[in-house]
Amino acid sequence: MSAQSVKLSGWVNSIRAVGGIVFLEVIDGGSLDIYTVVVKKSRNPEVWQRASKIKTGSAITIRGTIPEVQVSKRGLEVHATNLEVLAEPIDLLPLDPAGTTPALLDTIIEHRYVALRMAKQRAIFRIRAIVASAAREYLESNGFLEVHTPKICGAGAEGGATLFQLDYFGRRAFLSQSPQLYKQMLMCGISRVYELTPYFRAEPHSTIRHLNESWGIDVEMGFIDSVEEIMGILEGLIAHVFARVKEVASRELDALGVKLSEPRRPFKHLDYSEALEILKSLGFEIDWGQDLGSTEEKAIGEFMLKEGYDAYFIVNYPWDAKPFYIMRKGKLSAAFDLDYKGLELASGGQREHRYNELVENIRIKGLNPDDFSFYLKAFKYGMPPHGGFGLGLDRLVMVITQSQNIREVVLFPRDRQRLLP
Amino acid sequence: MSAQSVKLSGWVNSIRAVGGIVFLEVIDGGSLDIYTVVVKKSRNPEVWQRASKIKTGSAITIRGTIPEVQVSKRGLEVHATNLEVLAEPIDLLPLDPAGTTPALLDTIIEHRYVALRMAKQRAIFRIRAIVASAAREYLESNGFLEVHTPKICGAGAEGGATLFQLDYFGRRAFLSQSPQLYKQMLMCGISRVYELTPYFRAEPHSTIRHLNESWGIDVEMGFIDSVEEIMGILEGLIAHVFARVKEVASRELDALGVKLSEPRRPFKHLDYSEALEILKSLGFEIDWGQDLGSTEEKAIGEFMLKEGYDAYFIVNYPWDAKPFYIMRKGKLSAAFDLDYKGLELASGGQREHRYNELVENIRIKGLNPDDFSFYLKAFKYGMPPHGGFGLGLDRLVMVITQSQNIREVVLFPRDRQRLLP
Repeated sequence: MSAQSVKLSGWVNSIRAVGGIVFLEVIDGGSLDIYTVVVKKSRNPEVWQRASKIKTGSAITIRGTIPEVQVSKRGLEVHATNLEVLAEPIDLLPLDPAGTTPALLDTIIEHRYVALRMAKQRAIFRIRAIVASAAREYLESNGFLEVHTPKICGAGAEGGATLFQLDYFGRRAFLSQSPQLYKQMLMCGISRVYELTPYFRAEPHSTIRHLNESWGIDVEMGFIDSVEEIMGILEGLIAHVFARVKEVASRELDALGVKLSEPRRPFKHLDYSEALEILKSLGFEIDWGQDLGSTEEKAIGEFMLKEGYDAYFIVNYPWDAKPFYIMRKGKLSAAFDLDYKGLELASGGQREHRYNELVENIRIKGLNPDDFSFYLKAFKYGMPPHGGFGLGLDRLVMVITQSQNIREVVLFPRDRQRLLP
Repeated sequence: MSAQSVKLSGWVNSIRAVGGIVFLEVIDGGSLDIYTVVVKKSRNPEVWQRASKIKTGSAITIRGTIPEVQVSKRGLEVHATNLEVLAEPIDLLPLDPAGTTPALLDTIIEHRYVALRMAKQRAIFRIRAIVASAAREYLESNGFLEVHTPKICGAGAEGGATLFQLDYFGRRAFLSQSPQLYKQMLMCGISRVYELTPYFRAEPHSTIRHLNESWGIDVEMGFIDSVEEIMGILEGLIAHVFARVKEVASRELDALGVKLSEPRRPFKHLDYSEALEILKSLGFEIDWGQDLGSTEEKAIGEFMLKEGYDAYFIVNYPWDAKPFYIMRKGKLSAAFDLDYKGLELASGGQREHRYNELVENIRIKGLNPDDFSFYLKAFKYGMPPHGGFGLGLDRLVMVITQSQNIREVVLFPRDRQRLLP
C-alpha cells in the first residue's frame, strides 16, 4: 500500500454527508493546513457511524491515510480509518470557522479563541509571531542585548496624565508607558539593548490605531555619532522584517490576500517643515511647532505614496513638540518619526546625555527634576551619547497584514470599553 | 605594518600612570572584552596628555592598533593613536567597575547601569538573554506559537488576595498574575502557544526567591494524551537551554566561575507522597494535602542531590493544594512541579477541559463561576484536552548562573521595598 499513514488533530469546521460518505472539513490544530476527511460507510461502517453524528466545532483526532490520487479541491484529502471525538461543543459556535459566513470584528474579538480556527485569523497571528522573531533576529545580529525592564514604576516617562496608577504596598505606582527611562539608564553600562514589551497608556482615545495596552519593540544604542545611526538601524530592522515575512510566510500572506512589497529604500527623510508645506498645499493649516495628528499623518502618507515612497522618516521636529529627553538642536530636535503609508510606526531620536542640559530640559517642560532623580543619577557616571526608538509591534503587524483596525492583530485588545475577555 | 587598526568604545574602569606611559583598563561597550589601552608620551604626546587627565568611569572612544606581541596580561593590549572622551563622570562612581573592591548587592541594584561595566554583571545578563532566546528556539522548533496576552485584566486566575488592582477608566481591573486563563482559552482554537511575559503578584513576601514583578515562560498545549507529554516538553526545554548556554556562553560562565553541568536525564519523577516520606525521615511533619514550602523544597532538593538527581518533577499532588483549573484524579491531581536542587522552577499540569467539571471545580474552591464567565465560555466550543506550565525565567537564570538571590538576575527588581530605580 503506497498511501501514507497519518495521525491528525484539529477541529471540524464543516460537515457534509452524501449517500454513504461523510466529508469533514477539518482545520489542523496549529498550522494553516485544511484536511478533507473522507469516511466511507462501505469501508468502515463503525467510523462512518461516529462521523455522521459529529457536531460542527468538535475537537477530533483522526487516523487515516493520504491517498496518492487527491480528488478534494479544498485541503488535503485524508481517508479516515479511525476517528476520535475529544470534545464536543455544548453551544452553537458564535461564528463560522469555515469562513463561509463572515464574522463581525466585535464577534471575533469576543471569541478570538474560536476565530483562530479561521485561516485568515491564524495567518495574522502567525505573521505576528514571525515579525517578533525577525525583529529579534535582526537586533541580536547587530549586537543588541535583550533586556527586561520593570512595568511597575515609581515615575512615568512623560508625566502624569496618561499613566495608569496602582497601589504598591501603600505607595503610589504607575504602569510603564514605555521602557524609555530604563533603557536610557542602561546606556551608562551597556551599549546596545532592546526589549519586546507591553506599553500601558491611560489615554481615553477610541481610534482604529490606538489601544490602551499595546506591544512595542524598544531599542537604545550608545556611543553614537549622530541620530542617523539610529535611523539606519530602524530602517534595517523594518526591511529585514518585511523580507523575512515574505520569505517564510507566503502561505499566510496568500490566505490574507496580501501581496507584500518591501518598502522602498533608502527611506525618504522628510523635513518637518517640508511636511508642513505639503500639508498647506493640501489645505491643512498647522502652526509651526505643533505635532502632527492622525489626519495630517494620513494626508502626508497619501502624498508620499504618490511620490513613490511608502516608508519615510519625518525629521527635524521642533523641540517644543517632543519630550524632555530628546536632544535639542536650537529650536529643532534630534527626533524622528517613522511613518508607513500615513501610519506612525515608530518614533525615536538622539537623547540629551549631558546631565545639566537634561535637568534644564526637564524644567523647561514644566516637570520637577526631583521626580526623576533615580533616572538623572545615571547621567552622572559617564553617560555616552545615545539614542533609540520605540517601534509599535501591533502597528507593524497591521501594515504587513494590511489590517485596518489595530484590534485585528491583537488577540485580546484593551481599549476604553474592553477589559474582557 | 602588521599591527591591526581598531576603533573601540567603552568605559575606563581604572587608570595607571608609570613614567611616560598611561595604562587604561577599558571595558568594551557591550561585550565581555577588556582592553588594556597603552598611551606613550614618547609616541604621541598630545594623546598622552589627554589620557593622563582622564577620569575613571569616563566613556571614551579609542583609535589605535593591536600589536602583534601582546605584553598585557589582562585584556587585549591596544596602542592608542587617538582617544576621545565622550562623557566624564560628574560624581564619584558608586562602585568599582574593575571589581577590585566588591560591591554590596544593594549598591549594585541601586546603580545597576554602572554595575553592568563589571564582567560578572554583564555575564549574568548576557546569559539571561541567551536563556530567553534558547527557550524560544526550542518552543518554536516544537511548533509553539508566540502569543501576547493582556496584562491588564478584568479577573485574576487565582482569586483576589494576590492581585495588584488599578482603576481602568472607572472600572476595577487587575494586573495579570500569569497568562493562565488566556493561554487556556486559546487552546480552543490553536494547539500550541507560548509567551514570555511579566507576572505581577501582590504577595508581601521578602525572600531571596520571590519578586513582585517577575518574568516567566508560559506554555500551553492542546490535544494531549496525558500530563506526561507536558513534562516531556518542559524537560526538553530545560535540557536545551542548559546545553545552549554551555555552548555559546563559555566566556560568561568562566567570568562567573560557574562550571555548568546539564541536568541528569530523564528527570526523576517523585511522587508527592514519597516526598512527604522523605520529609518525615528528615524530621519534617507535613500533613498529607498540604503544599510544600521553601524550607521543605530545599530539604528535598538536598536529599535528591545526594541520590544523584539535580532536576526532578514532583507529581501526583493532592488536588486540594492546587488551583481550580487543574484536572482532578480522585483525591490527587494531574499537576506537577519542576524543582532544581530544591528551587521550584516551574509548575504545571493537565487542565480540566470539560465545562461542567470545570464549573464544579471553581465552586469547590469557593470561587464564583460568574466571575469567570469570559473564560468558561471558551470551554463550550470543543475544547480539547490540554495542559501546560509556567516556568520562572528569573529562577532559571538564577540556577544557571548559580546566583543566590533572585535580585542578582533582574536588572531593576521589584519587591515590597523597591519601586525605584
